[in-house]
Amino acid sequence: MASPFRTIWPTSDRYVEVIDQRFLPHEWVVVKLHTYQEAETAIKDMIVRGAPLIGATAAYGIYLAARTCVEENHDRSFMDQAFEALANSRPTAVNLFWALNRMKERLEVAENLVETAWNEAQAIVEEDVETCRNIGVHGLPIIEALAAKKPGQRINILTHCNAGMLGCIEWGTVTSPIYQAKQKGLDVHVYVDETRPRNQGANLTAYELTRHGIPHTLIVDNAGGHLMQHGMVDMVIVGTDRTTRHGDVANKIGTYLKALAAHDNKIPFYVALPSTTLDLSVRDGLKEIPIEERNQDEVRYVIGKSAAGAIEPVLICPETTQAVNHGFDVTPARLVTGLITERGVCAPNEAAILAMFGDLEK
Amino acid sequence: MASPFRTIWPTSDRYVEVIDQRFLPHEWVVVKLHTYQEAETAIKDMIVRGAPLIGATAAYGIYLAARTCVEENHDRSFMDQAFEALANSRPTAVNLFWALNRMKERLEVAENLVETAWNEAQAIVEEDVETCRNIGVHGLPIIEALAAKKPGQRINILTHCNAGMLGCIEWGTVTSPIYQAKQKGLDVHVYVDETRPRNQGANLTAYELTRHGIPHTLIVDNAGGHLMQHGMVDMVIVGTDRTTRHGDVANKIGTYLKALAAHDNKIPFYVALPSTTLDLSVRDGLKEIPIEERNQDEVRYVIGKSAAGAIEPVLICPETTQAVNHGFDVTPARLVTGLITERGVCAPNEAAILAMFGDLEK
Repeated sequence: MASPFRTIWPTSDRYVEVIDQRFLPHEWVVVKLHTYQEAETAIKDMIVRGAPLIGATAAYGIYLAARTCVEENHDRSFMDQAFEALANSRPTAVNLFWALNRMKERLEVAENLVETAWNEAQAIVEEDVETCRNIGVHGLPIIEALAAKKPGQRINILTHCNAGMLGCIEWGTVTSPIYQAKQKGLDVHVYVDETRPRNQGANLTAYELTRHGIPHTLIVDNAGGHLMQHGMVDMVIVGTDRTTRHGDVANKIGTYLKALAAHDNKIPFYVALPSTTLDLSVRDGLKEIPIEERNQDEVRYVIGKSAAGAIEPVLICPETTQAVNHGFDVTPARLVTGLITERGVCAPNEAAILAMFGDLEK
Repeated sequence: MASPFRTIWPTSDRYVEVIDQRFLPHEWVVVKLHTYQEAETAIKDMIVRGAPLIGATAAYGIYLAARTCVEENHDRSFMDQAFEALANSRPTAVNLFWALNRMKERLEVAENLVETAWNEAQAIVEEDVETCRNIGVHGLPIIEALAAKKPGQRINILTHCNAGMLGCIEWGTVTSPIYQAKQKGLDVHVYVDETRPRNQGANLTAYELTRHGIPHTLIVDNAGGHLMQHGMVDMVIVGTDRTTRHGDVANKIGTYLKALAAHDNKIPFYVALPSTTLDLSVRDGLKEIPIEERNQDEVRYVIGKSAAGAIEPVLICPETTQAVNHGFDVTPARLVTGLITERGVCAPNEAAILAMFGDLEK
C-alpha cells in the first residue's frame, strides 16, 4: 500500500471506499459504500470515526442518496429521509450536522443533483485536507525550533489518543506537524499513550505512524510523567474535541494528567486543532462542558487480538465489579502552551483567540 | 469463603497453602506447598507476589526444607541448597533476603530445626499482620476526620495498583485503614485505578475489595484527574516500594500523575507503608532510585478472561510496534501529604522521618 494514504476515497465508478477502522491495527479491511444507508451504517457502527471523517462520510452519503434518487426515479422525500437518517447516525458529532447542512444548502439550489452533491462532498474532503496540512505548516516551526536546540539528537513528542489522519482525511491534526517534520528530514520519535479505555493510541496512532514510517514507542497512560521527569519528552501535542473562548481544552480522558506533568517539568504542551472545534460560546471549560459518560464495559474489557488470531474482548476485573467511564476531561488554559491551528499558533487566552478567530463568532 | 482471609496459612498437617494469584480475579485456586522447591516455584512463577508475602513464603520454604531434611535424613548441606534456591527465586525482592537471613540466624542456634523454623515462619507472618493492622490504626483517624467534614456522605478514596492484603498476609497497607473504616461503620468507597500494564488494580484490588464488601468502582488510569477536578475524590492513598530519607516515594508507574492531580486540586495524598520500605540511605528519589525496565510485552498485550472462559493475552497494537515499560516512578515529597506507617503518620521530610525512624539507621 502506498503512503501517504487517505481514510475515504472515490472509486472510478463513482462510489466511495473507507477503511473499516474497527479492525485496525490487526486487519486492513476496505468497505465500499454504494448507498446512503451504507454510509449511515459506516458512521453508526464506527467503521469510520473522528469528526472530520464522519462529516466527509455523511457528505458522500448525501451524494449516494442523490445518485439513487435519480437512478431509481424517487421523489425529493427520498432525499429528506437520507438527511434525517444520516443526521441521526451519531447524534453528538458536530461536524456531521455541519457537513449535512452544507450539503442541504447547496442541493437546494442545484440544477444537477448528483453532480452538485459529488462536487460538494469532494470539496468538503479537500478543505479538510488543506486545513490539516496548514496545521502542520504552523506546527512544524515549533518542532524545528526544538530540533535546533539539540542538534543531532532525536526530538521526542508525546501524544495521547488518536488525533491523526485516521480521524480526518489526510495529515491529521496532531500528526500533521510530525509528518511534515519527517518529510523535512527531522529525526522525530513519538511516545504513543495507549489511551485506555478504547486504546486509540495503541490501535490507531501506532498504526498510522507505522504506515508513515515514523519511529514510535507505545507506552501505558501511566508512563508519561516518568518520561517527562527524566528529560525523555521534548514536547506534548494533543488534539481536542472542543476548545473554549478562554483556551480551556476538552479532549480524551487523561489529557489533563499529561498537561500537569508537562507543566511540572517545564515541557511545552501544545494542542492541535482546526478552528471548527473552537466553541466561542463557552468560557470556563471545567464548569460548562458536559462530559459524556460511556458504557462501563469499555473499562471492564480490553479488545485485542488473541493468540488464535481473533479480535475479541477480555474481562480484566471481577465479574461483579462496576466501572465508570467518563470519555473526556478538561485541561485548563493555564497548562496549555499554545493552540496550533490552520491560521497559526494562538496563545490560550480570550484576547489572542478573538484576535485570530473573532470572525467565527456569530 | 470466610472474610477476612489470609494469603498464606498453615494446614492441620503442618504444610502451608497459598492462593495462586495468577488466576485472580477470575479463578480461586489454592496451592499446597510441601517442599522448599514448591515454595521456590511459588515465588518464581508469581503464584505469590508482594514483598511481605514473598518474605513469608520464603520463611515457610525454609521450614519445609527443615522438615524434609529431618524426615529424609539429609545433612546440613541440604539446608544450604534451600537457602540458595529461595534467595535466587526473585533476585530484587528485599523482603526475601530479610526473611531468609532471619531464618538462618535463628536456625544456626536451634536445637530443634523443624520446630524452630515453624515457629519463626509463624512469627514473621504474625509480625506482618500486626504491622499492617497498625498502619490501619494510624490511617483510620484521617478517614474519620474527612467523614466528620461531610456527615452522612460517602468518603471517596482513590488508589493505584495493589497495596492490599493480597501482597501481604492480612489487612494490607493502603487497604488497612479502609478495612478498619468499614469495620467502624464508615461509608467508604474506593476508586480503583486499573493500573496498566499489569492491571493489579483491576485484577487484585477490585478482587479483595469485593471479598471484603467494600463498595468500589474501577476506573482507567486516565480518569483520576477528571474525578479530582469535580470533587469526586476525598483522598488518595497509595503504597510504595521504597521511600527515601527526604520523603520521595517510589511506587508503581503512574503514581506521580495522581499526586500531581491531587496537588492541583488540593486533595490529600497519603502513602501507606511499613517502615521496612524506608530507605534512609537514599535522599533524592528522582536522581538516586534506579527504575526497573520490564518486558515490553506487558504493554503490548493485556491479559484477561475471554468469552470462552480462558485467561489469555490479547495484542493491542500493530505487530511491529515496540513499547517501553518502566515499572515505577518517583513522586517528589513536595506532592505527598503524609506517610502512614505502623508507628504513626509522618510528614514527608527528613527531620520528621528521622525523628520517627532514626533508630532504623545503621
